[in-house]
Amino acid sequence: MMSICIETLSAEGRRDFFNSFDTVLTDCDGVLWIMNNTIPGATQVIIDFKKNDKKIFFVTNNSTKSHVQLLEKFHSLGFQASVNDVINTSFLAAKYLKANLDPSKRVYVIGSPALACELNALNVKNFGVGEDYLKTSVPEFVDNVKLESDVGAVLVGFDDHFSYPKLLKAASYLKDENVLFVATNTDENFSVAGSDFVIPATGCLVCSVKCSAGREPFVVGKPSSYICNVLMETNKIDPSRTLMIGDRCNTDILFGKRCGFKTLLVLTGVNSLKDVEEWSKSDDPTLQELVPDYYAESIDSLRATFPVSS
Amino acid sequence: MMSICIETLSAEGRRDFFNSFDTVLTDCDGVLWIMNNTIPGATQVIIDFKKNDKKIFFVTNNSTKSHVQLLEKFHSLGFQASVNDVINTSFLAAKYLKANLDPSKRVYVIGSPALACELNALNVKNFGVGEDYLKTSVPEFVDNVKLESDVGAVLVGFDDHFSYPKLLKAASYLKDENVLFVATNTDENFSVAGSDFVIPATGCLVCSVKCSAGREPFVVGKPSSYICNVLMETNKIDPSRTLMIGDRCNTDILFGKRCGFKTLLVLTGVNSLKDVEEWSKSDDPTLQELVPDYYAESIDSLRATFPVSS
Repeated sequence: MMSICIETLSAEGRRDFFNSFDTVLTDCDGVLWIMNNTIPGATQVIIDFKKNDKKIFFVTNNSTKSHVQLLEKFHSLGFQASVNDVINTSFLAAKYLKANLDPSKRVYVIGSPALACELNALNVKNFGVGEDYLKTSVPEFVDNVKLESDVGAVLVGFDDHFSYPKLLKAASYLKDENVLFVATNTDENFSVAGSDFVIPATGCLVCSVKCSAGREPFVVGKPSSYICNVLMETNKIDPSRTLMIGDRCNTDILFGKRCGFKTLLVLTGVNSLKDVEEWSKSDDPTLQELVPDYYAESIDSLRATFPVSS
Repeated sequence: MMSICIETLSAEGRRDFFNSFDTVLTDCDGVLWIMNNTIPGATQVIIDFKKNDKKIFFVTNNSTKSHVQLLEKFHSLGFQASVNDVINTSFLAAKYLKANLDPSKRVYVIGSPALACELNALNVKNFGVGEDYLKTSVPEFVDNVKLESDVGAVLVGFDDHFSYPKLLKAASYLKDENVLFVATNTDENFSVAGSDFVIPATGCLVCSVKCSAGREPFVVGKPSSYICNVLMETNKIDPSRTLMIGDRCNTDILFGKRCGFKTLLVLTGVNSLKDVEEWSKSDDPTLQELVPDYYAESIDSLRATFPVSS
């Protein structure tokens, strides 16, 4: 099966596409903006969706910003968004732990200050954020470090202070199978087009903890369908009338497929049309699952599908 | 297929077993010693093997000690060993890079001072060992760090100063597909029986670099058969008349199987008889591959197989 190009739809096809959903979920980085630069036309598309009574949610795997910080970014780049529209993985992780962790226990966090901030906002007790580097040797470290007795969960998000002692502590807490293991997301890298650098993302930290702990985490971010459960609980969305827009197929598109949404890939981020064409031809069902229903050059291409009056 | 217990062999079976090999390869930690404590009887078994004209090689995935440091450990624990008998992964990595790296290029090393020491001993240029922690933010770091232009390989061994900047640099160097990616080994954890701690080993660091780089490393340690090539080149061993002794099935036993050696598991380290029994019953060929030909309570049990005169 190959994806349908939005730009080549007939007038009727465009209308049918537009009328096929009431709710839009969209990824942010690579779809609405790249770093601090808005994708041309993106702010207007969001306005037009709202004008046409489409519900919009912004769904990002980013765990380095709190809800409030993300909202500031939306506003500074000219996007209309309110706090309930923005769903990020630090918020989701806090929500999951609030619901599943014994409140007398604490979370050992590998992650950013923003992640701790979201946990604090829901009164989920936590520790671990910040620098934790090896001052001595591993045997001396192990002789002197004390494992806390009230740890009920290990949470792994993006942490630029990731270090060997953090890895050791996380794996040691996870030895107790009653300790929950939660990851914000498993993205391998941040996308930085044209750079010499590869910027490792949360997935690289999660996999090293997994390797040592010999356990799989519960992932709250895309492509996990946990977000969908949260959304359906609070917003009563209908999956069959929901469109997921993203730039990364192994998170955004796979997430949409798993939730029963329509899926649209924009070519302004991680994956290219060439990737989609290759997967379409593959016999591997795991690759087939990455093929979006639709694709478009950019989110701006969607404006051609709006009713003429808008 | 289930393993044969050395202790239950008949007198004839013991003799046949003993006469079935000329060369013995043995793992160290968990077989000969645990931390700094010699396994009872281990020194005598090594002496007896030599008395009976068996060639012995000590094969360890440890990359935190240089050849010379390891030899000191052998001697301090009472083992007879010479420098050519000891094969560790820091030595193997240096040997591999000496043979495969353009000598005008340097190796970016995530690893211990001992690993650099082995590279230096073979005049393989390298850098990266030591502390490298994030002083600022990731964007500032990326703006200020310079990637070196003469990197021809990334080598990952055990590094207790493993950090986010090291991961970022490794992944960035590996973006160039001509840059070699080498790992000393992929052991998940160090074995520390009875401890509350899980001590993550090289495999946890390798998997995070793999995740970001999207590439598989060439592994020099067990279970890779590279060691066997090196041994056969220099020592003309006959795989069909070689016995591999180990305590960890996914490294030692799998290595032995891949090289066509006879394999013996001792129960003084990582894997138990229960593990072997489960794998024996499994239909999964990857689990079947972990089942040793023989098992014994400890290396000391082998003394019962020696000719009476010894």
